[in-house]
Amino acid sequence: MNVEYINPFIDAIVNVLKTMAQTDARAGKPSIKGSKTSKGDVTGLIGLAGEQAKGSIAVSFSASCILKVVSNMLMEEFTEITDEVTDAVGEITNMVSGGAKKTLSEKNIRFDMAIPSVIVGQGHSITHMTSGPVIALPFETDHGPFFIEICIVNTG
Amino acid sequence: MNVEYINPFIDAIVNVLKTMAQTDARAGKPSIKGSKTSKGDVTGLIGLAGEQAKGSIAVSFSASCILKVVSNMLMEEFTEITDEVTDAVGEITNMVSGGAKKTLSEKNIRFDMAIPSVIVGQGHSITHMTSGPVIALPFETDHGPFFIEICIVNTG
Repeated sequence: MNVEYINPFIDAIVNVLKTMAQTDARAGKPSIKGSKTSKGDVTGLIGLAGEQAKGSIAVSFSASCILKVVSNMLMEEFTEITDEVTDAVGEITNMVSGGAKKTLSEKNIRFDMAIPSVIVGQGHSITHMTSGPVIALPFETDHGPFFIEICIVNTG
Repeated sequence: MNVEYINPFIDAIVNVLKTMAQTDARAGKPSIKGSKTSKGDVTGLIGLAGEQAKGSIAVSFSASCILKVVSNMLMEEFTEITDEVTDAVGEITNMVSGGAKKTLSEKNIRFDMAIPSVIVGQGHSITHMTSGPVIALPFETDHGPFFIEICIVNTG
């Protein structure tokens, strides 16, 4: 996978969480996701498809992190994963993918976005069904970790 | 959502499970998914995107059902959700979407498929982030239930 795919996603999530939830997200070291399974509590997933590229993107939060993020976003205290929290994760996933799509289209990497879905379940695992690499981007916040997984395959 | 989207998915999953896993899937009554959250143990998710339509499809199995299906497919007894089971769910999701895509393209409804992902986690919930309807298709097998959720929105 082309490394130029990565930075637009980092920039997008850092920007989204900063402006919408007053949350500083600190990017850790990107790695190729191997057999190690990453687990999250609330995950936004969105597919990408087009003539040039296809892929899937996961934005997966620990419960502690997303509860604080959404509490900040909606200026209301959330202590459990409600529909509002699920919706917010879908919206964050959309905004991150949309932001990255815009940056990538300027580099002539174009794709359409599918409809996002959100998975809720303590410690669920996510596997992307691709023979290509999956890039894992870990992040830390003051309220706990989250991660983004990016898998994009050239088809053009 | 156009009802002509539904039958190609029913036909595809019934055909895939019959030919690959000698499993009879009996379709229940389709419904519009409301606030009721459906929960599965192993879910294959795939995004659809294109100039005419975008969407997301979930194929979600109870553990008992998928363990028997994969045991039949691979002619080996599986009693827990291993990587082979996860891979098989990804493959089933791909085949069902691919089969439906082919049928729908003959009706001039065209989209590209994203990369599928598979979620594993007992009783996780799935929410599709769309303002349009989500069609829930329940199925029964001799080994337990599974369901398909279809959400496709015209964009063209």
